[in-house]
Amino acid sequence: MGLFTTPSSKEHYIITHTTTYRVIYGDTDKMGFVYHANYFRWFEIARSEMFRHLGMPYKSIESRGFFLPLSEVHCKFNSPSQYDDILLIEASLDTSVKGMLKFDYRIFSEDGKKILAKGYTKHACVDRDGRVVRPPKFLMETIEKYRDSN
Amino acid sequence: MGLFTTPSSKEHYIITHTTTYRVIYGDTDKMGFVYHANYFRWFEIARSEMFRHLGMPYKSIESRGFFLPLSEVHCKFNSPSQYDDILLIEASLDTSVKGMLKFDYRIFSEDGKKILAKGYTKHACVDRDGRVVRPPKFLMETIEKYRDSN
Amino acid sequence: MGLFTTPSSKEHYIITHTTTYRVIYGDTDKMGFVYHANYFRWFEIARSEMFRHLGMPYKSIESRGFFLPLSEVHCKFNSPSQYDDILLIEASLDTSVKGMLKFDYRIFSEDGKKILAKGYTKHACVDRDGRVVRPPKFLMETIEKYRDSN
Amino acid sequence: MGLFTTPSSKEHYIITHTTTYRVIYGDTDKMGFVYHANYFRWFEIARSEMFRHLGMPYKSIESRGFFLPLSEVHCKFNSPSQYDDILLIEASLDTSVKGMLKFDYRIFSEDGKKILAKGYTKHACVDRDGRVVRPPKFLMETIEKYRDSN
Repeated sequence: MGLFTTPSSKEHYIITHTTTYRVIYGDTDKMGFVYHANYFRWFEIARSEMFRHLGMPYKSIESRGFFLPLSEVHCKFNSPSQYDDILLIEASLDTSVKGMLKFDYRIFSEDGKKILAKGYTKHACVDRDGRVVRPPKFLMETIEKYRDSN
Repeated sequence: MGLFTTPSSKEHYIITHTTTYRVIYGDTDKMGFVYHANYFRWFEIARSEMFRHLGMPYKSIESRGFFLPLSEVHCKFNSPSQYDDILLIEASLDTSVKGMLKFDYRIFSEDGKKILAKGYTKHACVDRDGRVVRPPKFLMETIEKYRDSN
Repeated sequence: MGLFTTPSSKEHYIITHTTTYRVIYGDTDKMGFVYHANYFRWFEIARSEMFRHLGMPYKSIESRGFFLPLSEVHCKFNSPSQYDDILLIEASLDTSVKGMLKFDYRIFSEDGKKILAKGYTKHACVDRDGRVVRPPKFLMETIEKYRDSN
Repeated sequence: MGLFTTPSSKEHYIITHTTTYRVIYGDTDKMGFVYHANYFRWFEIARSEMFRHLGMPYKSIESRGFFLPLSEVHCKFNSPSQYDDILLIEASLDTSVKGMLKFDYRIFSEDGKKILAKGYTKHACVDRDGRVVRPPKFLMETIEKYRDSN
């Protein structure tokens, strides 16, 4: 899909993956649109599916003793989402960031023509004892292998 | 408050505690009222405050190695709750139930005159290994002591 | 799918539909399993997809001036759901209930072999002014037409 | 409380208000801490209580035909929040921003000594027809009156 290929100006987007989501009633608030906090649940869905697409589900990272708690989140809302809308949620790993993980997100209308929201999440990497560590070698190697074969 | 005293027909309500909650925008949905699933968050708040009132915060039960996962939940909605409403959430321990824990809840309008919702939650008791066990002795004794002194 | 055909003892299940859901981190709580209130979000997803399957998306019911607020909910948890699990959520319209709408739900493990939870939701039917009315004719006719052709 | 007085370098914080919140089980996730999206619910609580403190509850702004949908949100997490923690959530109106509303937030540990998270939210102002408008005069006058009397 042309729309979602990596723009040349962002060469560090070696991994981009898009997931579909349908808005439920429980996502909305009395203004008639989606309550803002729920966008971060969708970012999680897209990020999670990207890890799976990479061949390394987030669950398998945890089972190897590493966790990726959020250290920073941001979202800009351009146009509201509504009940029963189908959304495309694109997650991209920003590999220009070192020592932690940063993901960029764009939420598109179903036809892919309109950007409804843009955001990012930053993640520390911690071990089982809660100590901040560098992202584990097996994860970085998986990312490099993916880049080399794409 | 006369309203919240135990009715004589429910002698097994030895512990009743009422907590106040103010409805936020994030609780509502596009129909303009509170999304039904959120009532169970409020039941949790009331149950939690009742444990604290009993002198046995739920956190201290967990730190002694016991957990109270939900096994069944129910709620009947009589009248909708709206944004910015102040609600009274009453939790009562139903001590007629043995081998597990059951709580009954009533949600009242701010003036205490209208019942907006009624429900219950049932909880198994499990130990650190996830095995179902009987409610621990220290918890039952705390409940009995409370009953004797009230 | 044999598993989900209507059992003969429940002839009033003329409409049964199953939806797939993958558990996200945001659904879980510190006990390591899914927070109970989130099951009702999943029931909504399944109910919503059943309306769509019926050819009558819930959104189209609202656009015709009718709303289906929840009047009662219930759920029994047999076995916990965990992060990243794929669940099958089955919604069935119980047409034996008159004057309102009742849906029964069963949540199955991905292989369809284990029932993780069972529940129901009851819905009043209200018009734009919030008055309780009987379910509209166009909805009942859609249900009958579906039954006759299946 | 000295801690929460406006620092002199931020003279545009003419309104600062702090609200208390206790973390519930439903706020946490399987990592054992609070799920990040929930911080924005808390920001809403603090923002809402600040409007009330100002003598202008958000509900009254809506009833006069103005809405404040979110246009941008940000949060930086310094230290995790845990189940049953009492948090202090400070909301400050940043009056240096024109044409829209911006709030800054800081979340403190119960003793006020540790900043757990910092963030902001930006809000457009829209009328009943969804058109973006300037913040209404009655709101700006309320803010100015508050500033002059404090």
